[in-house]
Amino acid sequence: MSQFSNQEVYQLIDRAIEFKSGKHSLAGTDKYAMNLFFENSTRTKSSFQVAEMNLGMKEVAFEAGSSSTTKGETLYDTVRTIESIGASVAVIRHPQDEFYQDLLGKNINIPIINAGDGTGQHPSQSLLDMMTILEHFGQFEGLKIGIIGDLSHSRVAHSNAEILSRLGAQVSFGGLNSWYTDEFKEFGPHMSVYDLCSEMDVVMLLRVQHERLSDDENQGFSKEAYFKDYGIDMRRVDLMKDDAMIMHPAPVNRGVEIADDVVECDKSYIFQQMHNGVFMRMAMIEAVLQGENTTDGIANKKRQIILR
Amino acid sequence: MSQFSNQEVYQLIDRAIEFKSGKHSLAGTDKYAMNLFFENSTRTKSSFQVAEMNLGMKEVAFEAGSSSTTKGETLYDTVRTIESIGASVAVIRHPQDEFYQDLLGKNINIPIINAGDGTGQHPSQSLLDMMTILEHFGQFEGLKIGIIGDLSHSRVAHSNAEILSRLGAQVSFGGLNSWYTDEFKEFGPHMSVYDLCSEMDVVMLLRVQHERLSDDENQGFSKEAYFKDYGIDMRRVDLMKDDAMIMHPAPVNRGVEIADDVVECDKSYIFQQMHNGVFMRMAMIEAVLQGENTTDGIANKKRQIILR
Amino acid sequence: MSQFSNQEVYQLIDRAIEFKSGKHSLAGTDKYAMNLFFENSTRTKSSFQVAEMNLGMKEVAFEAGSSSTTKGETLYDTVRTIESIGASVAVIRHPQDEFYQDLLGKNINIPIINAGDGTGQHPSQSLLDMMTILEHFGQFEGLKIGIIGDLSHSRVAHSNAEILSRLGAQVSFGGLNSWYTDEFKEFGPHMSVYDLCSEMDVVMLLRVQHERLSDDENQGFSKEAYFKDYGIDMRRVDLMKDDAMIMHPAPVNRGVEIADDVVECDKSYIFQQMHNGVFMRMAMIEAVLQGENTTDGIANKKRQIILR
Repeated sequence: MSQFSNQEVYQLIDRAIEFKSGKHSLAGTDKYAMNLFFENSTRTKSSFQVAEMNLGMKEVAFEAGSSSTTKGETLYDTVRTIESIGASVAVIRHPQDEFYQDLLGKNINIPIINAGDGTGQHPSQSLLDMMTILEHFGQFEGLKIGIIGDLSHSRVAHSNAEILSRLGAQVSFGGLNSWYTDEFKEFGPHMSVYDLCSEMDVVMLLRVQHERLSDDENQGFSKEAYFKDYGIDMRRVDLMKDDAMIMHPAPVNRGVEIADDVVECDKSYIFQQMHNGVFMRMAMIEAVLQGENTTDGIANKKRQIILR
Repeated sequence: MSQFSNQEVYQLIDRAIEFKSGKHSLAGTDKYAMNLFFENSTRTKSSFQVAEMNLGMKEVAFEAGSSSTTKGETLYDTVRTIESIGASVAVIRHPQDEFYQDLLGKNINIPIINAGDGTGQHPSQSLLDMMTILEHFGQFEGLKIGIIGDLSHSRVAHSNAEILSRLGAQVSFGGLNSWYTDEFKEFGPHMSVYDLCSEMDVVMLLRVQHERLSDDENQGFSKEAYFKDYGIDMRRVDLMKDDAMIMHPAPVNRGVEIADDVVECDKSYIFQQMHNGVFMRMAMIEAVLQGENTTDGIANKKRQIILR
Repeated sequence: MSQFSNQEVYQLIDRAIEFKSGKHSLAGTDKYAMNLFFENSTRTKSSFQVAEMNLGMKEVAFEAGSSSTTKGETLYDTVRTIESIGASVAVIRHPQDEFYQDLLGKNINIPIINAGDGTGQHPSQSLLDMMTILEHFGQFEGLKIGIIGDLSHSRVAHSNAEILSRLGAQVSFGGLNSWYTDEFKEFGPHMSVYDLCSEMDVVMLLRVQHERLSDDENQGFSKEAYFKDYGIDMRRVDLMKDDAMIMHPAPVNRGVEIADDVVECDKSYIFQQMHNGVFMRMAMIEAVLQGENTTDGIANKKRQIILR
């Protein structure tokens, strides 16, 4: 995400909104896409599949669990393999931070889209978040955005904070103090949930990722206590501005970071985010496929950018 | 199944027979189907996939084992997710009885087809059974139908008994006495396998579902004894009427409820049932997709009906 | 493989080369393919999928891990099922040697392609190997071909030795002496890796299959020792003729049978083999689909042949 210029972010959002309004693209006709998910994900994988098929692509199934990687094959050899077989794009989710470092500067000639690396980045999620905010407010300049939750284990907290700041928004944070590590302090202050709900234009919740907490953190962690201290219930929603948005990358933990009746309340854009995700992924895939066929420096740069 | 009128059953069978005879439908063109199978099933899942693709739909893969539900997501949120991503229909198999109760009366706007719930219902199996019988005999009125096997753990025994009775057939039962529970007594008597084979027009076998038997039942259960007492071998087939049918929802346990050489004998319609299943599922999916686009009460009712 | 005539091998290679050069075939339009993989394989399964889709077929997913075979269904019943559901071809990989013996001479009416049986055969791999050699050298007559590695556990060593001998090449072997069992002695001598690298036109490496080694073999086995004694590093590549080829069925064990920098060196055709695999599989599937629609004895024979 850090490699996208502001202009490139706006371009991708514009194109995604065009797709949402019914525009077609045949950029992927007769091409194959491979989605390599080495970690669980219903929504991201399915969203990429629909995006690929909307662009006319065919998906070649790749089941990480039953793949040759269990025979000790390197990720590089797997990607070279699917390239040799005819894939035009590889979409990869991998538990290892910056897995793509093993792929850069080598002999891979197809674009790779990072669909989430360890606790690193999740560019398509960040971009669909930007799209959803821009659709609602028309601009980022001056918006107050609060990110509440497990900042340190999130794939989107850091990149969203970075990109939102660059686009002119003011970012603040909430949740356990121990999650508000140094890397976030440069972007904005830590505030109480009361203040965040009262003052923010966007309340961006993060999933409490039990599976990523350290043993120590899990030891002392109580869902009930978290919900009481930081969870968003209708009482806290009532503090929010009239046009405030509640966002969440999902899957949600009902009764932990968000109350049952908040998930689909008027201020919630959670399912709208998922809906937008398909169009943003279409824009991303179209961009990298176009990069493939041109010697245009920008397109090729875009391709590298989306990789990281 | 209990919510279908007799007329609706006949309509779906008629349409399925049209598809079988080569009629095309483009009802699903450019639409996406999602098959959410939280339990094993080769034939049902593949049959739905082929039915969907025959209607012009594209399937978005959903691997229950690697899905966000393993992160604790509710079924409702999963279905809302796939709806947000663009699915036009969700086909769900789930180990929980009446899983759909968690989905009714909420904010879901796509039709859901029950592909089997716990030990509850399995509407597409019941309907393809009806289709296969009607193709052979031309009517249900006066037919004698014997259902033999593990009635209490079967998804089709109860709904088939109910629908066959309503359509004018006479139902009887066979197998362990302990499986012939009160819910079946209103439909017909328990008879010996000898009498069932001699008198029935249709002998409908059920799979012995070892995986669903209680520990107590498994303790005392012997495949050999079951086969001797209740299994259909060629000796018992020879007792049957000339035009009698042997049916089984499959997968079969060869040597338990059915002998090897009976599976594909002249009187067996087992693989014919599977073949018909694709056309019945096409009729069902077409019906719910049409319900989606009309304000026609009947179509919308049909949609709800297939859900339950 | 032993049932293909030399002429049939050349016909399949010719057709595969036509596909590679851009020729289209609509042999599979509106037909369904089912890939039943009861063992791990990224490349073979994906390669068949792309081949099927290139021919206009649609793939019906079959997840062996979550299939009815885990309920004890026989392979025969599974294949009869997918035939009933509408598949026009079944591609099967199975851990059991000669799994297809259970399917022959029975009531199956669709062609079956063996995608690898136990430690038996792997016809599509053998044929793509032949294609890759013929593309490079234009003929087999007089070629010297060395096969190095775990001969006894390999699916391709024996059938490649047999077919290459028949086509006029001279075969030799390398690797542990204990792997050079009697079945290989009729085809050619066992030689040192030094002599093989110096004299061969093709050095065909096999994967050390740790998962197939016996406990005894695994006990004494050291990757480092194997690499030192039999692995191909750049020093050994430098011994080779100018136009020599290095081949490997993949996945490779980097640092065991092949050094990192050899995998993509000038003499390596490893990724070219994978690329060719798609076109060879198109030729194979087209051949069996054509057999399906004709009463031509040759086509039907071809169908049986590819089965075995």
